[in-house]
Formats: sequence, structure tokens, C-alpha cells
Amino acid sequence: MMLRYDVLAIGNAIVDVIVAAPPVFLEERGIAKGSMRLISADEAETLYGAMGAGREISGGSAANTVVGMAALGARPAFVGRVAADQLGDVFTHDIRAAGVDFSTPASSNGNPTGRCLIVVTPDGDRTMNTYLGACQELTVADLDPAVVAASGILYLEGYLWDPPAPRAAMETAIAMARAAGRRVAMTLSDVFCVEGHRADFQRLLANHVDLMFANENEACALYQTNDLAVAMAELRKHACVTVITRSEKGAVVLADGMEHVVPAEPPVRVLDTTGAGDLFAGGFMAAMVQGRALPDCAAAGCVAASEVISHYGARPEADLKALVAARLG
Amino acid sequence: MMLRYDVLAIGNAIVDVIVAAPPVFLEERGIAKGSMRLISADEAETLYGAMGAGREISGGSAANTVVGMAALGARPAFVGRVAADQLGDVFTHDIRAAGVDFSTPASSNGNPTGRCLIVVTPDGDRTMNTYLGACQELTVADLDPAVVAASGILYLEGYLWDPPAPRAAMETAIAMARAAGRRVAMTLSDVFCVEGHRADFQRLLANHVDLMFANENEACALYQTNDLAVAMAELRKHACVTVITRSEKGAVVLADGMEHVVPAEPPVRVLDTTGAGDLFAGGFMAAMVQGRALPDCAAAGCVAASEVISHYGARPEADLKALVAARLG
Repeated sequence: MMLRYDVLAIGNAIVDVIVAAPPVFLEERGIAKGSMRLISADEAETLYGAMGAGREISGGSAANTVVGMAALGARPAFVGRVAADQLGDVFTHDIRAAGVDFSTPASSNGNPTGRCLIVVTPDGDRTMNTYLGACQELTVADLDPAVVAASGILYLEGYLWDPPAPRAAMETAIAMARAAGRRVAMTLSDVFCVEGHRADFQRLLANHVDLMFANENEACALYQTNDLAVAMAELRKHACVTVITRSEKGAVVLADGMEHVVPAEPPVRVLDTTGAGDLFAGGFMAAMVQGRALPDCAAAGCVAASEVISHYGARPEADLKALVAARLG
Repeated sequence: MMLRYDVLAIGNAIVDVIVAAPPVFLEERGIAKGSMRLISADEAETLYGAMGAGREISGGSAANTVVGMAALGARPAFVGRVAADQLGDVFTHDIRAAGVDFSTPASSNGNPTGRCLIVVTPDGDRTMNTYLGACQELTVADLDPAVVAASGILYLEGYLWDPPAPRAAMETAIAMARAAGRRVAMTLSDVFCVEGHRADFQRLLANHVDLMFANENEACALYQTNDLAVAMAELRKHACVTVITRSEKGAVVLADGMEHVVPAEPPVRVLDTTGAGDLFAGGFMAAMVQGRALPDCAAAGCVAASEVISHYGARPEADLKALVAARLG
């Protein structure tokens, strides 16, 4: 079968509301700096009311990843749920304008489009407060088996493992992709996701996932250890290619008993680290689709991550293709 | 009577949708680069569909001005109409978070909240395509006479002279302000506003306005001349203080037969000129409220304009108070 898409991503369809604030804003509210947490509509309203003026930019982890892949010449599709409202229109417009196929129908009788209230502190660290809204209304009925089968990589967002209906959709998508002989990739997304779904994530890693992205904390959380070497020893037992991102220390790729260490790309400046991991995964998979070697895939990921942290918002602004070409040749 | 507000502004309540694009995007559509035009809901949908991914940041000319004034320590209020929708919530949140009193009720059965589709070309020039939406539903019933009487300056946005109901509200507000002995300020906003309402604007200037902001093109359009000297000769005939902004050439203040020439503040970079005139007016009036001399008011305006053109969006991001203090001492 001809491939229709290089990657089909399933994830949260979210608009980010980005506000700069000092660390004390988080301390006063008992919000752990650098974390991601899910909040209710009421909490979102209260927190938004306390936040300063913001800028709204489309986000969503896997959505950011495939936007980065499109900028790098890959053909991506995205599955996720927005509501039929203004923020849903914004999300839909932006992801399509970026070159990503997106045709999941908007819901019209449920929750509003999801949003992520992101507090960016002067050190560039981001603290995310996510109201999932319509995102959690994604169901297995939103999957087109023919599209899953015609996509080279199925990419899953760990964040979306939390709400039950999208989780069931992703389990089904995995089965569809495997039946069609496609690769399955996923990101662990956040320590809270790993804590909540450790057994599931370990099962997926052992049996169903070919490529896994995690940062150091998520890798350690998966094996309940504080020692990255211990986590890496566990990860090496699986056939899955595992990519561990380490912020300014770059990335490590574990594959076939090998360990590839790749340095970070020094950013022009660090303004807002939102999307660093998302764009790393995007750069990595875009290079992989082109048949690049794993260390080059990781290098491309580092370049894409470096670009996105140099400005507000988790979608690329500069010419990613030129930046990656300059690094990889 | 004690002043409750330093300034009460009446203007469009708009969220900007900012997209970077090459000049050819405008040429292909026959849109004059650097212009502002009003578009219908259908045109807005078509143009938005053709635009790249954007970022949404609260805007509106007079709203930007009073946000700048709040950042500089003044006490502003704003009157304008949003709809009860997500973009209306964004506008309301952002202007209040900036320290501006805003309590005009949102409409719930009319058009959606207004938005301005802004195409920013690589030279920093902005081309604005404005869908007014709920903005034009502002009426005289939205004015609180006690608030108008208790505001030191009534500031009017020329753009809002176009739709009839808000224009009538502004005429009434002028009468209220004059009856209370308050000052009236206005901006001519755009050449298309001047072309459409030349007789009204000349009447206001002659009889009702104490402080007028215009750029060179607007000043020339007011007197149907291509010669700024001719326009300035006409403007000098009025008691009104007239401030003519001249982009990188700074500003000229005409007052009491005097002409004060003030140089521009060199910006760090020019990324997006949206809001330059708005923030100039904000810096000027904030200094005026503090009792500064006219040349210092214009210098403060230049500093505020210089900040806002160094980043995307027409609301200040840096510490305006510190920047103005550094210039004026």
C-alpha cells in the first residue's frame, strides 16, 4: 500500500494562552514550577482571571510535533478534538495553514475547545495548566482505519492517555497500525502521565511501541528510580528505540544495544521552553522519515527544539528546513 | 469634582490575528500594503483561510493607547463592545489585566467579537483587515455620564467614526465631556477615516477637540493636499494642540503658535509596526497627565512607540515606565 502520510499523530487539540509572570505568581498558588497539571473549567477561569495579558498561539504537544514535521517537508496528519467555537477555529486554521491534514469533526454540544494556560517565568521555564475541554471527547469513531494503515508512523501523545475515551481510541489505533505493519511512536509527555499510567506505558513499551520519546525525569519515573543509569538499563532490555532528551545536555538514543549521545544545539536565546520536547520529536521523526541515521535524527531534533525555545509559543517561526540543513548538510 | 479616571477612551474592542507573510501575499489579493480596510465576515473568513498560522493578541487602537497609559501609571477606562464569546473573553481579560477599567456589557445576540487580520511583512510594515463585528453595536446607552464627567480626558478613536451608532455615542460623549469642562482628544486613525469623514473631523477640530493625533498622511488628507506644510498651516489656525507623527522622523507638536520638533527613539529592532501610533498617543497623554511639557510628552510617545514596534503585537511588553524614565529622567 502506498503511504498517504508519513505520520499520523493523535493528541490534544489545544490553544495555548501564554503569559509572562515572576516565579512568585506560581509560589503563591502552590503550583510547581515547570510542571503540567490538568485543571477544571472553574480552576481555569480563576487562574486566567489572576494572570496578566496573554497571547494565544495554537499548541498541543503532538500537534506541535507534526507542525514541525510539516515545516521539515514531511506529510503529517493529525487527529484530535476541538469544539465548534472561536478557539477551535483558531486551532483548525493554524494546523492546516502549517501543512498538516486535520479533519476530525469539531464537537458542538460538549465542552469548549481545550486551552493551556502557560506561565512563562523569566528563566524561560514554562508551567502549564491545561483545561482539556473538548479534547477528551475524542473517540474511536474518529479514527479512519484506512488512514491509520496508510500512515508510516502512528505517533501518540502520552498526555492523551489520561482521559478514557481518547485512550481507548489510541489502543485501537495501535492495533490498526500494527496490523498494517506500521511503526508506532509515542511520547511519555510528563511525569504525571507516567505516574498515572506506569503499567500501561511499560506494557506499550514492551510490546507495541517502536520509538519512544522521554525526558530524564519521565524515564526515571517509568522505573521509579532517581538514577538515570538504572532507567536506561531497563530501557535497553526492549527492542524499542528510546530517545531520552536532556535539555541543555542534548539527547541520548538507545537502539540495538548502542548508545548515541548527541549534544544540544545552543539556542540564540531561551525565552520560552514550551514545545522543546515536541519539536525535538518532530525534528527527529522528520529526519527518520528521510532515512537519516539515528544520531542525525537526534541532531535534527536538537535544532528544532533550539528554534522553538527562542521565542514565545510552541510552533516554529524560523525556517526549520534551512536550520536543519545547516546542521546536517 | 474629583477625577475618577485620567482618561476615558472610546474605541474598537478587537483581537488582532497576526501573521507574517511576504509582500506578494498582499499583491496577489490587491491589498494596499500598509493600509487599513474594513472587511465583511465573509471576506474575513476567506482571507483568514489563505493566511498562515497566527498569534492572537488583544488590540484595538484606543485600547492599545490606554493599556500603554496604564503601564505608565495613569488611571484609564475603556468603552467598547465585544460579544459574549471566546475572543470577547480574551479582550476583556487582557485589558483588565493591563490595569484598565472596562465594563461595557458584552453583546450576546449580534455579531461575534471584532478581529483584525494583520499581515506583517518582513520590513515590519503591517496591513490591517478589520472585521468590526460587535464593535459597531456600541451605542449611546453604553456611556455613563458620571464617568465621562469624572475623566480628565475623553479620547476618541477615529476608526470608530465609521459605524453610525458608535459615532453617535462619541458625539454625545463629546458634549458630556465639554459640559463637565473636560478635555477632548482624538486620533484621525487612518486616511480612509479622514476621506470618509473630512467635514466631521474638520468640525471637531475647529470646535470640540483639544488634542489631535495624526500622522503625516492623515494630516495631508484632512486638507486634501500632498504638502505637509500646507496641512500644518491649516492646523495652526485652530486652538487645538496637534501632534503629527512622522515614523522614523519623530513627531511635531503644534501648539499656541509654537512648533516643537521631537526626534524618534531608535528601536532595538523593527519587527511589527502595529500599534506605533497608538502607543505614541498613550505615552504622550500619560506624560501630559503628569503635567509634563509638550516636547517631553512627545518624547515619551516616541519611547512607547519604539518599544511596541520591536515585537509582534500592539500592546507593550517591556517596562514602559522604566524606558520613559530613562529618556525623560
